[in-house]
Amino acid sequence: MTTSETREEAVLEAVGKRRELVNDAIPEELPVARPERLYEASRYLLDAGGKRLRPTILLATAEALADVEPLSVDYRSFPTVHEEIDEIDMMDAAVSVEVIQSFTLIHDDIMDDDDLRRGVPAVHREYDLETAILAGDTLYSKAFEIMLETGAEPARMVEALDVLANTCTQICEGQALDVDFEQRDDVTPEEYLKMVEQKTAVLYAASASLPAILMGADDEVVDALYGYGLDVGRAFQIQDDVLDLTVPSEELGKQRGSDLVENKQTLITVHARDHGLDVADLVDTDDVDAVTEAEIDDAVARLEETGSIDYANEKARELVEQGKERLEVLPDNEAHDLLDEIADYLIERGY
Amino acid sequence: MTTSETREEAVLEAVGKRRELVNDAIPEELPVARPERLYEASRYLLDAGGKRLRPTILLATAEALADVEPLSVDYRSFPTVHEEIDEIDMMDAAVSVEVIQSFTLIHDDIMDDDDLRRGVPAVHREYDLETAILAGDTLYSKAFEIMLETGAEPARMVEALDVLANTCTQICEGQALDVDFEQRDDVTPEEYLKMVEQKTAVLYAASASLPAILMGADDEVVDALYGYGLDVGRAFQIQDDVLDLTVPSEELGKQRGSDLVENKQTLITVHARDHGLDVADLVDTDDVDAVTEAEIDDAVARLEETGSIDYANEKARELVEQGKERLEVLPDNEAHDLLDEIADYLIERGY
Repeated sequence: MTTSETREEAVLEAVGKRRELVNDAIPEELPVARPERLYEASRYLLDAGGKRLRPTILLATAEALADVEPLSVDYRSFPTVHEEIDEIDMMDAAVSVEVIQSFTLIHDDIMDDDDLRRGVPAVHREYDLETAILAGDTLYSKAFEIMLETGAEPARMVEALDVLANTCTQICEGQALDVDFEQRDDVTPEEYLKMVEQKTAVLYAASASLPAILMGADDEVVDALYGYGLDVGRAFQIQDDVLDLTVPSEELGKQRGSDLVENKQTLITVHARDHGLDVADLVDTDDVDAVTEAEIDDAVARLEETGSIDYANEKARELVEQGKERLEVLPDNEAHDLLDEIADYLIERGY
Repeated sequence: MTTSETREEAVLEAVGKRRELVNDAIPEELPVARPERLYEASRYLLDAGGKRLRPTILLATAEALADVEPLSVDYRSFPTVHEEIDEIDMMDAAVSVEVIQSFTLIHDDIMDDDDLRRGVPAVHREYDLETAILAGDTLYSKAFEIMLETGAEPARMVEALDVLANTCTQICEGQALDVDFEQRDDVTPEEYLKMVEQKTAVLYAASASLPAILMGADDEVVDALYGYGLDVGRAFQIQDDVLDLTVPSEELGKQRGSDLVENKQTLITVHARDHGLDVADLVDTDDVDAVTEAEIDDAVARLEETGSIDYANEKARELVEQGKERLEVLPDNEAHDLLDEIADYLIERGY
C-alpha cells in the first residue's frame, strides 16, 4: 500500500465514524411524520447513502475550534467558545447542511432529468414530479427549522441563518449559470470557477464556517474557515471533472467522458477552448450510450495535448494548498489535521 | 350602492394604498441581478399583480400595534414596542411573506400543471420547467434573506425566522394532503379544514403575527394575531370554494364549478358526502371544457339541498367573527378597524 492509500484509508475511517453518527441523527431530526408519503420521499435520498462529507467537515471544524479530542465530546451538547450559552447541539447544524444538500440534489435531478442517484432511482422517478418538487421544498424549510434547534445565542443564530439563506440563493444562481453556460462557447476559466463556487463550494464554505459562527468565534476565524470551504469545494468539483475523463466507466458508475458527450462545460474544456481546441467537436455523438471508449481516449489525448487536464489538476492542488493555509487560524490538534487530510483526499480520491 | 358595496370599496382603497407601496418595494428587495433570466423568472409572477392581501394584513397589524395613524409612518423605519432597537424595516417583512406566497404559486402551478396565473402564463409555461423550479427555490431563500434585513433584535428575528420556516413546512404538508385527498372519498370536514389551515391559512397567520414578533409584543398578542390569521385564512379558502360554484364563469375568469369537474375536495363536497350525496357523480365529465352550465346548475342545486353551501357560508362567517374577536388584544384604532374590515371582505368579496 502506498502512503497515499494509507492516508486515504485513515481519512475514510475518520469520515466513516462521523457519518454513522450523522446517519443516526437524520431520522431523529426528520422523522417520517404525516403526510407519510411526503416525508418518505423527503428522506429517500438521505437514506440512500452518501459520504456525508459536508457534515463531517462541519463536525471536525467544531472539534478543532473547541480543541477537543476527536469524537470525545457528544455533538448534541457541544461546548461553545466565550459565549453566554455554554453548549449547543452541533449535530443539528451538521444535519441541516446535509438536508440542504439533499434538497438541491432532488431538484437538480428533476432539472437535469437524471434517472439515477446514489444507485437508486431519482426521487421524481421513484415517486413522481409533484412529490419530488414538494419533498425538496419540505427539506428546504426543514433545514432552517433544524438549524434553529442548535440552541445558539440569538445573534449567532441570526448570522448562521443568514449564511444558510445566502448559501441557498447562491446555489440557485450557480445552477442557473451552469445551465446558461451550456448555451455559450465563450465561458472563461474565471467564470467557470465562479459558477462552481456558487453551485458547489458555498455549501462547503457554510459547513466549515457554521461551527465558528454558532460557537461564537471571532470574525477572522469565521472568514478563514469560509475561505477553506470555498477552496476545497472548488477543488472537489474540479476533481470530479477530471475523474469523469480519467476513471474507467465501471469504477465511475457511469460512462467515462459523459460530460464531453453532453457538452457540459468543465474547467478542462474551458481551458482547452481558450487554447484553440474545438471542444464542441471532441466527440461526435451527443448520446452517452453510443459513444465508444476509443472516441473518449482520443478526446482525452487532445485535452492532454493542450495541457488542460494538467491545468485542472494543478488548479485543484493549488486551491487545496490555499485552503489548508487558511486553517492556520485553528489550534494545532487532531481535528485540524483531519481537515487538512480531507482537503487532500478531495483531490486524491479515485471516485 | 349597498352598505356592503361601500364597505368593500373602502377596504379595497385601503388595501390599494398599501399594495402600491409593496409594489414599489418588491423590485428594491428583489432586483433583477445576474443571472438575469433566473431573476426575471423569479419576478415574473410578482410583477404580474396580485391583491397583496397578506402584506397588507402585515402592515395594518403593525400600524394597529404601534397605534399610529394609518399610512402616517414610513414602513421602512417603523417604531417597535418596548425593545432596545427602536425602529425596524416593516416593509421587508411584508415583502418577505409575498415572496413566500409567490414561490408557492410557481411550484403549485407546476404540480397542478396549470397554464395560467393572474392572467399571464404560469412561470413554467412562460419560461420552462427547470427555470420555474429554480425561480421558486430562489424566492424561497430570498424570503429569508429579506426577513433578515428587517433589523429586529436577534431574539425576535430568530422567532420570526422560526415562524417563516415552520410556515413553509406546513404549506408543503398542506399541499401534500390536498393531493392525497383527491384519492380519498372519506375526508371529513375537520380533516379538510386542517388541510386548508396548513396549505393556506398559516401564511395569513404568519402575516398577522410577524409584526408583533418583530416589534417585541407579548406572547399573548402574538398568539392572538396568529389565531386571527388562521381564522380569516381558512374563511378566505372556504369563500374561494363557494365562489367557484356561485359566480358566473365570465366574472370568475375560469369555468364555474371547475372544482367539481376536477373532483377537488372542498368543504362543500366533503359536507355533502357526509350527508349522503354521491359527490363523485355530481357532474359526469372530468373535462372542464366539456361541462355545460346546466350540469353545473344541477350540481349546485343538489349541493343546496344537502345544505352544504349554506354550511360553508356559515362556517366562513363563524371563522371571520372568531378572528375579529381575537383582534381585541389590539388597541382601538383605525388600523384595527381595517383588519376587521379585511376579515369581512374576505368572505363578502365576489371574486
